[in-house]
Amino acid sequence: MNGVRQPTANPTIGQYLIQRLQDYGIRDIFGIPGDYVLSFYGQLEQSDLNVVGCTREDCAGFAADAYARLNGIGAVCVTYCVGGFSVANSIAGAFAEKSPVVVISGSPGMNERQHGTLLHHKVRDFRTQLEVFEKLTICAVELSDPLEAFALIDQALEAADRYKRPVYIELPRDMVHVVPPMNHASHRPPVETHPQALDEAIREVVQRLQKAERPLILAGVEIHRFGLQDSLLALAEATRIPIAATILGKSVVSEQHPLFVGLYEGAIGHPEITQYVEESDLILMLGTFLTDINMGIFTANLKPDQCVLATSEQLRISHHYFHDVPLEPFLQALIAEDLSPTTRQVPDPLRALRRMKAIEVQPNEPLRTSRMMSLLNRYLDPQTVVIADVGDCLFAATELVTHDRGEFLSPAYYTSMGFGIPAGLGAAVAKSDHRIVILVGDGAFQMTGQEMSTLIRMGAAPIVILLDNHGYGTERYLHPGEWKYNEIQPWNYARLPEIYGGARGTLCTTEKEFESALTVAWDDRSKLHLLQCRLAENDASETLKNIAARMGERVG
Amino acid sequence: MNGVRQPTANPTIGQYLIQRLQDYGIRDIFGIPGDYVLSFYGQLEQSDLNVVGCTREDCAGFAADAYARLNGIGAVCVTYCVGGFSVANSIAGAFAEKSPVVVISGSPGMNERQHGTLLHHKVRDFRTQLEVFEKLTICAVELSDPLEAFALIDQALEAADRYKRPVYIELPRDMVHVVPPMNHASHRPPVETHPQALDEAIREVVQRLQKAERPLILAGVEIHRFGLQDSLLALAEATRIPIAATILGKSVVSEQHPLFVGLYEGAIGHPEITQYVEESDLILMLGTFLTDINMGIFTANLKPDQCVLATSEQLRISHHYFHDVPLEPFLQALIAEDLSPTTRQVPDPLRALRRMKAIEVQPNEPLRTSRMMSLLNRYLDPQTVVIADVGDCLFAATELVTHDRGEFLSPAYYTSMGFGIPAGLGAAVAKSDHRIVILVGDGAFQMTGQEMSTLIRMGAAPIVILLDNHGYGTERYLHPGEWKYNEIQPWNYARLPEIYGGARGTLCTTEKEFESALTVAWDDRSKLHLLQCRLAENDASETLKNIAARMGERVG
Repeated sequence: MNGVRQPTANPTIGQYLIQRLQDYGIRDIFGIPGDYVLSFYGQLEQSDLNVVGCTREDCAGFAADAYARLNGIGAVCVTYCVGGFSVANSIAGAFAEKSPVVVISGSPGMNERQHGTLLHHKVRDFRTQLEVFEKLTICAVELSDPLEAFALIDQALEAADRYKRPVYIELPRDMVHVVPPMNHASHRPPVETHPQALDEAIREVVQRLQKAERPLILAGVEIHRFGLQDSLLALAEATRIPIAATILGKSVVSEQHPLFVGLYEGAIGHPEITQYVEESDLILMLGTFLTDINMGIFTANLKPDQCVLATSEQLRISHHYFHDVPLEPFLQALIAEDLSPTTRQVPDPLRALRRMKAIEVQPNEPLRTSRMMSLLNRYLDPQTVVIADVGDCLFAATELVTHDRGEFLSPAYYTSMGFGIPAGLGAAVAKSDHRIVILVGDGAFQMTGQEMSTLIRMGAAPIVILLDNHGYGTERYLHPGEWKYNEIQPWNYARLPEIYGGARGTLCTTEKEFESALTVAWDDRSKLHLLQCRLAENDASETLKNIAARMGERVG
Repeated sequence: MNGVRQPTANPTIGQYLIQRLQDYGIRDIFGIPGDYVLSFYGQLEQSDLNVVGCTREDCAGFAADAYARLNGIGAVCVTYCVGGFSVANSIAGAFAEKSPVVVISGSPGMNERQHGTLLHHKVRDFRTQLEVFEKLTICAVELSDPLEAFALIDQALEAADRYKRPVYIELPRDMVHVVPPMNHASHRPPVETHPQALDEAIREVVQRLQKAERPLILAGVEIHRFGLQDSLLALAEATRIPIAATILGKSVVSEQHPLFVGLYEGAIGHPEITQYVEESDLILMLGTFLTDINMGIFTANLKPDQCVLATSEQLRISHHYFHDVPLEPFLQALIAEDLSPTTRQVPDPLRALRRMKAIEVQPNEPLRTSRMMSLLNRYLDPQTVVIADVGDCLFAATELVTHDRGEFLSPAYYTSMGFGIPAGLGAAVAKSDHRIVILVGDGAFQMTGQEMSTLIRMGAAPIVILLDNHGYGTERYLHPGEWKYNEIQPWNYARLPEIYGGARGTLCTTEKEFESALTVAWDDRSKLHLLQCRLAENDASETLKNIAARMGERVG
């Protein structure tokens, strides 16, 4: 040729954003269109990304969160203010529980923002939404300058991936089609690890492990978020160290694994498991959140000087800290140490606790959540994703035994009611070959139950188990008394499929009815099944009773 | 007696807050309980306030907003983070449209906030929610210090009342029952007016009015918010100056008043009204927002040097500003001037435009929004509150003629979809003797339609007119093309009363069916009526077509 290099056709800012989302593994995006984002929606619809329209923005946020937990990263796209502020709660939850959701919001064009103009949707000034999301995400950027846009997109997506927290990208509508006049090479800066600090920390932990007679691994949710399940198992299997998990970390390892002890929930869990964990003389807390519900409402009795707490954010051994030693390199370095196995065993009685009691169906007995979980447990397999909304369905569901990488999702820390159904949508999109089971209370269902309509629309076939106790059941235990505020309007939930079209609803009031409805649902992969389960009067799981007793003291 | 004064029994912080809410005229409060606010909910339930539980927090926020618009001030009470962030969008809308909503949020007790503790619901740190609401309200306070609590409550409520914007009060749960060890006298600082500035401004306006041959009053929503309807009419009737209104200001004066000209919407409104307004040689813009939709998407052609813009925030005459001259004293001073009447008339053809054309029902014709409004218009009376959600129902509803103080509510500036049904709840609570008519599109209904359940539960009998066009109809006009993202799942909306219990749903596809369903509904004050109105293919009001043409240029 003539030696003149043809400049590569540069992408527009919108196209570049879409390309980078795909680079990070996003195949689907949730949201609701609106005028300030219509032009980007047009690009999305013309791209390879699958756009999933939801009934509400907060549902789209929950769906993207669940998708991110299962897929590694997720995204939601909304319009300015009315859309952005409507996902604030979902994104706050994703931040709190470390789920990397990319929030993309349209906004008024830079050329519309003349002095003093009041454009519709605007709140205080044009930056209000950006400033709010600076508080709710790990990185918030505005693509207002073509020369910076590509670098800011790189920076935001890299932050989501590295910190497993939501990020926020605001795209003024007149920037969508702009082609920045520059070449841009995306790059991913390496995660910084301090080699001497890592080395010193590993030597100290190895020394402690060698002395320990009763070591234990307490696995947390970051193991899942950073995809470290295999590393965790490699460490445990090489050293034979038993593994317990927190509620938020439930399902990070198969609960049928021979080294698995159970869920540690302080004084509110099984006393045998609590005792076993608390008797440990060295606890490797790997990717664990120290939260009140995880830790049994402050009833955890773990001595800091016997703990090693390794997370993506900090490494603490006893009472001292190592900086710049993230979870992953720490775990890899520990595995490389070729440690000798411990002799500590998981006692058979603990193993037995993990096998849910096989119960005999009492045909005409009214429904109780704990017994329903035992019945449901029979059906679970490695291809099942169980999603628990907030309340007693979450507490009862902790008794379920997950298989292999069978997944269990819940907002166990942030505990936002209404997570269940939209999270089921996110799971159905992320894992279309899996069976999705959603456990949800009636109060939570009234918040976001309409997202079933989207599941139906896309032809998904989840099983929705609605635990109907006519109100905010958990609160009845937290603040005892005849409070009217816990009562809600009783709906004929089972008939909602007639409204949305193309699903099956069944009302269950006895164990026999529940069992047969569940069997029918399990055998039918063609449609969504909604089981409205009327619970026995004053039903509550043992865990809820324990938690309520603890938390009630603080409600005052 | 012995001269020793008995100290009055001081109230707890929670009791004082409730008392002050009542002092400002709040009789009802909307919300959803949650653990961090249960103890305050207990106090609420034991007080004279009526607690209205909603299905979702954002619905409670919209309800409180509508209640505030009709009652003068409103309140919503939620729990920490999961509740607070869920009302962010509703409160942003209340801020943008100047509706004084008091947001009360529970939060973790001060004694629980030990160093490093991760309590459930927490996002980044304990102040994150407060910091977000500092951006979305005019005053945000935290009642963490008993010595300051009463003064901060006074300050927040006074700010809501003075600025007609939302305020935020965060109540740590261990402060609810605390009795501050002090006496406290509440006081209301006077609004500051600069007397010389007021005087100078009035002299200039009077001079301009005396010279003006074609003066006009353009009335905005602040007339309603500050309860200045009578003052406005006194001014207009004394001076015979004709009155036009903005969309957001629709219904601030009776649209049947002889001085009323119509709605001014720039190039997208009736050309005769636009011409009449723009021919004015002096426009008193009273309590007007300068927003894009109000002003016809920037097609307003009003010359600043012929305008006097008086709002609660600023007074601008031509190109100069007067500080500290709020709307109300300005208006009172102008009335006191005893001005001579203008000779400008409202021409008969304009009067005729305000009388909606009486249409002949075409029994088998498919439904068109504009014609439905003409049919509905016959039923309106001074006891009717009409609420329009966002989209074509809003644009079409601007054609309705309100009576006396018959009210018209809409989120015409912030335009958040899903406002309608929950706002109907707020209106039904605020004005229990009025008939509530809610106009809502199907997309908006899917967002918050479940709040019908609360209306049913409290025995309200609104008429819900659901304009069903299978998707986001406005966006089809804004961004023409066969975009899938505008399609939504078609629901059998008319059958939803069977789910919620105790209401009547009717499917209407022709004018005859609509008219008879509307008649049945109007005559039945015993229950909620939901009219699912299937619109003709590609139906759109003239206003929407005009707006879409204007806005589409910016969507890109």
